[in-house]
Amino acid sequence: MSEATSFILDSRLAADTHLVGDLSLSRVLLMNDSRYPWLILVPRVAAVSEWHELSDSDQQQLLAEQVRTAKMLQSLTGAYKMNVAALGNMVRQLHVHVIARFEGDEAWPGPVWGVGAGRPYDSSRAQSFIAELRTGLGL
Amino acid sequence: MSEATSFILDSRLAADTHLVGDLSLSRVLLMNDSRYPWLILVPRVAAVSEWHELSDSDQQQLLAEQVRTAKMLQSLTGAYKMNVAALGNMVRQLHVHVIARFEGDEAWPGPVWGVGAGRPYDSSRAQSFIAELRTGLGL
Repeated sequence: MSEATSFILDSRLAADTHLVGDLSLSRVLLMNDSRYPWLILVPRVAAVSEWHELSDSDQQQLLAEQVRTAKMLQSLTGAYKMNVAALGNMVRQLHVHVIARFEGDEAWPGPVWGVGAGRPYDSSRAQSFIAELRTGLGL
Repeated sequence: MSEATSFILDSRLAADTHLVGDLSLSRVLLMNDSRYPWLILVPRVAAVSEWHELSDSDQQQLLAEQVRTAKMLQSLTGAYKMNVAALGNMVRQLHVHVIARFEGDEAWPGPVWGVGAGRPYDSSRAQSFIAELRTGLGL
């Protein structure tokens, strides 16, 4: 995989999330919205907006990391359904949402984007959840 | 890849779409909503709801088909951004949305799900678009 030295995390993604850690290709972020267990994978490559703009090997690696992250998060949270999506209408930098969904969560059964106002984690809850996520990801 | 003989397309997916054709793993469907060029890939395997429930080889194949389909649809339509997502909150059968988005389309910049009422294709437009899609996918 090609970790470009020119990777710069989009400022909006940085502002909306906590850092979990780095997998081989992707930076793993925790969306700062405690309504949903919600991770974001951002491949650490130079400016790319679409899956199909990644190299073949980076596509394979991003898939592996997406699958690993979704499986871990579902197992950790007992989620009813995982939502996995690369949209990028507002933030062009390629990023993959991995969201644990529960029947009856605030947006259920619709998608989470644009629904109501985010509910930030309190600091101790964020730190303990990030620790669990890092363990789950082997970080 | 494992094409299970027990594949049955979810009845809601069938009702909401036109058939485009079959790739090696996935059935390709055209959402019957002319507001957005919107394809859906459904792996032809027995009941699976999550990417991580697919076998490793089927995951690889679905990724290849997702990437191929998104690249083709963006090229065919000149879309500004592709949206690629596996949600499945309403239809549990694993399916991947591949949606061509344009600045100023009805849902822009939000996601398309649950926005307004669908606008079905007229029959001749559906047939001509499906023909283009089949050519683009080499079907």
